[in-house]
Amino acid sequence: MAENDSHSQFLAIAVEAAKIAGDVIRKGFYQTKHVEHKGEVDLVTETDKACEDHISNHLKEHFPHHKFIGEETTAACGVTELTDEPTWIVDPLDGTTNFVHGFPFVCVSIGLTIGKVPTVGVVYNPIMDELFTGVHRKGAFLNGNPIKVSSQSELVKSLLVTEAGTQRDKLTLDATTNRINSLLFKVRSLRMCGSCALDLCGVACGRIDLFYELGFGGPWDVAGGAVIVTEAGGVIFDPSGKEFDITAQRVAASNPLLKDKFVEALRQSE
Amino acid sequence: MAENDSHSQFLAIAVEAAKIAGDVIRKGFYQTKHVEHKGEVDLVTETDKACEDHISNHLKEHFPHHKFIGEETTAACGVTELTDEPTWIVDPLDGTTNFVHGFPFVCVSIGLTIGKVPTVGVVYNPIMDELFTGVHRKGAFLNGNPIKVSSQSELVKSLLVTEAGTQRDKLTLDATTNRINSLLFKVRSLRMCGSCALDLCGVACGRIDLFYELGFGGPWDVAGGAVIVTEAGGVIFDPSGKEFDITAQRVAASNPLLKDKFVEALRQSE
Repeated sequence: MAENDSHSQFLAIAVEAAKIAGDVIRKGFYQTKHVEHKGEVDLVTETDKACEDHISNHLKEHFPHHKFIGEETTAACGVTELTDEPTWIVDPLDGTTNFVHGFPFVCVSIGLTIGKVPTVGVVYNPIMDELFTGVHRKGAFLNGNPIKVSSQSELVKSLLVTEAGTQRDKLTLDATTNRINSLLFKVRSLRMCGSCALDLCGVACGRIDLFYELGFGGPWDVAGGAVIVTEAGGVIFDPSGKEFDITAQRVAASNPLLKDKFVEALRQSE
Repeated sequence: MAENDSHSQFLAIAVEAAKIAGDVIRKGFYQTKHVEHKGEVDLVTETDKACEDHISNHLKEHFPHHKFIGEETTAACGVTELTDEPTWIVDPLDGTTNFVHGFPFVCVSIGLTIGKVPTVGVVYNPIMDELFTGVHRKGAFLNGNPIKVSSQSELVKSLLVTEAGTQRDKLTLDATTNRINSLLFKVRSLRMCGSCALDLCGVACGRIDLFYELGFGGPWDVAGGAVIVTEAGGVIFDPSGKEFDITAQRVAASNPLLKDKFVEALRQSE
């Protein structure tokens, strides 16, 4: 099979899996939820687990030789090393706190890496019915329409998004709010939406100009969005300005015009 | 006309006005915008002005003897004093920064005070097609379905929303981020959405447990949401715990179970 054909098939099956999981999320979103605790702030729901099963089964049925890294499975079984093999990296329900509270920024995030390169990305918000997709060298789309990052080149006119995270120790939290304080002097305004994958898609479609997050859950939060943001003409990088490492739990994204200014502003915020 | 009948008519006409303005916002949202500056961060758009004209004309046509306070008119002509007369208080486009960036939290906010009491509230997000309504002693609704505030009673399980505001002087900004720092130790997580009126509606429908904002634009940001949140069983108050003053540019809201704990947390954050 030619590379293009196989990538198209990977995307089609990933979209099917995201839609199946999205249906489960949508039903749960409007019902009373039975919530378990995972750490101090983070939450896992029955929906989360059901969605991962659906996605994992669907992908394994079509691609039995591909590897699979899922938030729930990995959290339960320890870290799975990322290899060069085709590997699906899945967050079945990104924005679990939003899900529990009925706040509409929730999504399924599915990414495929080949040779560790993010190659296919699907991020689906079933509440707002927004399907973001991206395939390496094939562009990025929202509900089938091409998307691109903003053309903003000035920090002072830029909209920034970040997250408060789940860590509540004083050192981390002080660093978090000091960083926000420093950045607010330089950007237009700040949003916090509670979903790393949707934040990346926000940059991809130009709703947001700047995004960074430190200390999020794992590669499943960024594997889908990474392809989408780069295919939309954006750049994804470590907040230090160095190369993006999908396993590092550190991410920043913007359009190419803003990257150097953003990295400098992030550096000054430390 | 009986009070109930007149209130129903006020609501019906306000909903019509919000839908007319909502159509204008929806069209503008997906187009390139011509943006003017208003202060350092705040933005006014042509849409904002067109919407206020539509709403003002529609309300004046039906209620020629009612007073009118609109964000755009008032900003241009100076502050209009709130009297005991029936007074429509209108933000034709709350979330102008979101509008300019294409971020989907934008709305029309229309409130009617009678004897200075918020009596009718309509908040309409035309992008997500969510219409929040409330009438004094008649309940609150989202797209016609009754809504109520959350039943959460613990701060640590509560989702907080606030805004970064538009002030960028060091004193204000340091106070803003110090407050956020203090509160993040006590609540589950934080959201920032960029629309005061929609934040109030988020509390009203239980998506959000806690909201406060200091230093927002004026009574038009809260006049619609105030009725909706109280009719949904919530409480609206000054962040100090004192009585809510619609003209004070200070607001907090929650369910009744959380109010005292929230006020204490806000006090400790100063």
